[in-house]
Amino acid sequence: MFILFGGRGALSRTYQSRFILSSASSRASISTLPSTVSGLLDFKPEEAVEKVKIDGYVRSIRAQKRHHFVAIGDGSSLTSLQAVVPVDQAEGLTIGAAVRLDGSWVPSRGRGQSHELQVSQATVLGPSDAKTFPIQKKYQTPEFLRTLPHLRPRIPFNSTVLRFRSEIITSLMSFFNSRHFVQTHPPIFTASDCEGAGEVFHVLTENEKSASAADPARPFFRRPVYTTVSSQLHLEALAQALGNVWTLSPTFRAEQSDTPRHLSEFYMLEAELSFTDNQGAIMDLVQDMLKHVAFDLSGSKVYSELVSPVGNRSPDLASIEKVTERWRGLTQDTWPRITYTEAINLLEAADLPFLHKPAWGKDLHTEHEKFIAAKVGRGYTPVFVTNYPRNIKPFYMKEEEPGHDVLSPRTTVECFDLLVPEFCEIAGGSMREHRLKNLIESMRGRGLLSMLSSENQSDTSQELDNNLSWYIDLRRWGCPPHGGFGLGFDRLICYLTGVPTIHDTTAFPRWYGRCDC
Amino acid sequence: MFILFGGRGALSRTYQSRFILSSASSRASISTLPSTVSGLLDFKPEEAVEKVKIDGYVRSIRAQKRHHFVAIGDGSSLTSLQAVVPVDQAEGLTIGAAVRLDGSWVPSRGRGQSHELQVSQATVLGPSDAKTFPIQKKYQTPEFLRTLPHLRPRIPFNSTVLRFRSEIITSLMSFFNSRHFVQTHPPIFTASDCEGAGEVFHVLTENEKSASAADPARPFFRRPVYTTVSSQLHLEALAQALGNVWTLSPTFRAEQSDTPRHLSEFYMLEAELSFTDNQGAIMDLVQDMLKHVAFDLSGSKVYSELVSPVGNRSPDLASIEKVTERWRGLTQDTWPRITYTEAINLLEAADLPFLHKPAWGKDLHTEHEKFIAAKVGRGYTPVFVTNYPRNIKPFYMKEEEPGHDVLSPRTTVECFDLLVPEFCEIAGGSMREHRLKNLIESMRGRGLLSMLSSENQSDTSQELDNNLSWYIDLRRWGCPPHGGFGLGFDRLICYLTGVPTIHDTTAFPRWYGRCDC
Repeated sequence: MFILFGGRGALSRTYQSRFILSSASSRASISTLPSTVSGLLDFKPEEAVEKVKIDGYVRSIRAQKRHHFVAIGDGSSLTSLQAVVPVDQAEGLTIGAAVRLDGSWVPSRGRGQSHELQVSQATVLGPSDAKTFPIQKKYQTPEFLRTLPHLRPRIPFNSTVLRFRSEIITSLMSFFNSRHFVQTHPPIFTASDCEGAGEVFHVLTENEKSASAADPARPFFRRPVYTTVSSQLHLEALAQALGNVWTLSPTFRAEQSDTPRHLSEFYMLEAELSFTDNQGAIMDLVQDMLKHVAFDLSGSKVYSELVSPVGNRSPDLASIEKVTERWRGLTQDTWPRITYTEAINLLEAADLPFLHKPAWGKDLHTEHEKFIAAKVGRGYTPVFVTNYPRNIKPFYMKEEEPGHDVLSPRTTVECFDLLVPEFCEIAGGSMREHRLKNLIESMRGRGLLSMLSSENQSDTSQELDNNLSWYIDLRRWGCPPHGGFGLGFDRLICYLTGVPTIHDTTAFPRWYGRCDC
Repeated sequence: MFILFGGRGALSRTYQSRFILSSASSRASISTLPSTVSGLLDFKPEEAVEKVKIDGYVRSIRAQKRHHFVAIGDGSSLTSLQAVVPVDQAEGLTIGAAVRLDGSWVPSRGRGQSHELQVSQATVLGPSDAKTFPIQKKYQTPEFLRTLPHLRPRIPFNSTVLRFRSEIITSLMSFFNSRHFVQTHPPIFTASDCEGAGEVFHVLTENEKSASAADPARPFFRRPVYTTVSSQLHLEALAQALGNVWTLSPTFRAEQSDTPRHLSEFYMLEAELSFTDNQGAIMDLVQDMLKHVAFDLSGSKVYSELVSPVGNRSPDLASIEKVTERWRGLTQDTWPRITYTEAINLLEAADLPFLHKPAWGKDLHTEHEKFIAAKVGRGYTPVFVTNYPRNIKPFYMKEEEPGHDVLSPRTTVECFDLLVPEFCEIAGGSMREHRLKNLIESMRGRGLLSMLSSENQSDTSQELDNNLSWYIDLRRWGCPPHGGFGLGFDRLICYLTGVPTIHDTTAFPRWYGRCDC
């Protein structure tokens, strides 16, 4: 996220015209000439073309006696366009200024660009005080740029990352539409704490916040309400009504961690499959989805920008070879699938000085996941690790049938994590416990139900004080076997763009101590 | 949202097969036969077809001596499929049960359906205790059903509304993609209160919530943080980096109102156009977008379900004629545009006993908007009302040039509201004040800046304590004329589905006093 006003190579491939307005009142006539930097860079006439008009921002200026060479960008392209501005038109053309340029698009005699805009008229639409403009044309640290989230997206590579975010949403939607999944809007505010981890943000009105403990305010929602940590429970309800469902929705965790992998506000892509008794089908879906995205976008202009050697590519970014390899890894036919027990066996056999000694029944640490991704996926393809011990996974996961995994006499659940090289966990999923009795047993075993009534095993009416009675209800009236997954959308963007930290995959990141703007 | 287990007419038009899995491991073979109720209802072979398999839920049962006639739905269709189940296979087929049926799809001799499934094997995948199932096959009030948000989507018309929500998202995305708008994810948590109305939800960690006033906890984000009331300010920053942008994003208001038009959590569709000095272009965009949706979806299966006379259409819904008319209204070529001043003149001339006397400088009440929609739009087409007085609109709206509107000597801003018949305001937009000095003046005039420094009119460094300094910054370094709009997405769904209240357009509505599940 740190490249300043990148170079002017000709990478763009697709013709784009951004202002096709169908209504007549807004523009007198519809020009067929490209009106964006991206579109103009792809437009390579042999002869000069007159009456070209372009809006954009001044990225850099090289002043000469009779002309100024001005690099113009508009966020549509990593590369800039070269405008040749007569000195008498150059007033107010300072770095950062918003300008409208009229002129001719002509084959360039200079090096570095095939064409250039010979400007007849330059109009400053938004002046810029270049002396104070904090985004400078030199290396600036990611930390410094993160203090300017409102200006940082103007850096060309950052605009590429944000355009990539837009295109991957479209690609995911086309994937789920082709499979007839229904896109849903599960709630952000919820009274149900899905993971039970307590790392939630509470939601309070001004009245509630300023009330004292001695004289509390009446809660706006008549109960404690949080921002959601996962849409899964609500998606399960929707899957029983609509069939297969998905969402791309904001989720929140109040974790006090300042790592390159964590945000307090992040987008989760979650899907739930109805009438499925096979976690293999869920892994297939994750794999097909990521393959679809990789195939769909690897021919796109935005991909070519992500792996472009043109411009001042920041040393903070993953190398071009690395990013290319990650994309290729996703398109591989076979993604290995191993069980947790097999993973533990591999880790124990490796005899490496891990900080945390691997042991059956304990969660895998990042160092373990990195080893597995390198060993099993050869540091190249993603790897599914399945069937973790029950005690380290949430209450809703379905227990495996006894004897299912001969290597594991101890209880495991039908679940998986998807590990990608270096980055490790990017998605996780499971079969859900769809049987009423088993779900209640699992919840009782974790203290999520107080054991008041034990005569009727499925009567929980006396012991429900945790706002999950509705979730149990889903099992009372027609609950088929089902399962689903969640994928960290910002992590996926981090992985596929080569941006070093998740804080730089989104324009306005929120994490421990930071909520700028 | 209140139709119970609707009838079994044959409305479906599009062939849909929901389980096309490309990976081999999940299913032994890919069947080319429809596997959803919707798909099967559209499949009308002249001869019986064997080896049909369908998953779904029992909606109703008519028991006969040798066979039971079972209506099966799966959320893919308003109408059910008729399954003829031999008595020896009917065990456990209770209302609500999740079942898998194998059999033959044969032309039906009965009335009411062209084909029926003659079942050879019925498997109960999720039993249902029909005696306690709260969703009954009779009229149930919307109020009662809202107490069961986790079960309510199983009612066929409700699943239609949720599928419509999914399809309209796709249609909107295709519209914005065709215009090369970048889809963005502006933040949900923010330190900036856009409207300044104070009706925000505060976000607090467990520690902060339980701390006392005497011994406050260190804020997680080191400052007060709210859930956003609008993404506009952040979209403006993004538009300066990316060009035209849009989002469909959750927003929140802590309004203590329990009306059919208000939610505490709702989706806003917001777009911001860069390099535009013409609010006509923004109105054109809104108009083109809604026309696109209406044309795009009016031929869809989900539309035919919204206006279907088949089944027990709830008396609570708007009439079929009304819904049809609303859709047709959106496709009209000309949507009238009148100024606020013209609207006031019309209201005054009407000489009607309004509860609130219309007067220039006061906001339009719903009764006034209804009159304008009826009078100017003939209760049919939407109506734009433009150029409201400055004092009733937010600080960021651009003031009109003096003398722009000869009817209005008093100051107005370049803005508009879009009114639709009956429903009234569904969208609003404006040009934004892009000039540094004018924005600072507007903020000072509203007390958003304390008047410490007056020598340097654009130096606000000493008077900014309201977390909007970043928003002012946007005007310092290249701010072209720009504007945008916001549309209440749930209101649009309410309008186009004929559902009487906005609480029933989303599965898990949140409003004053209500956050169930």
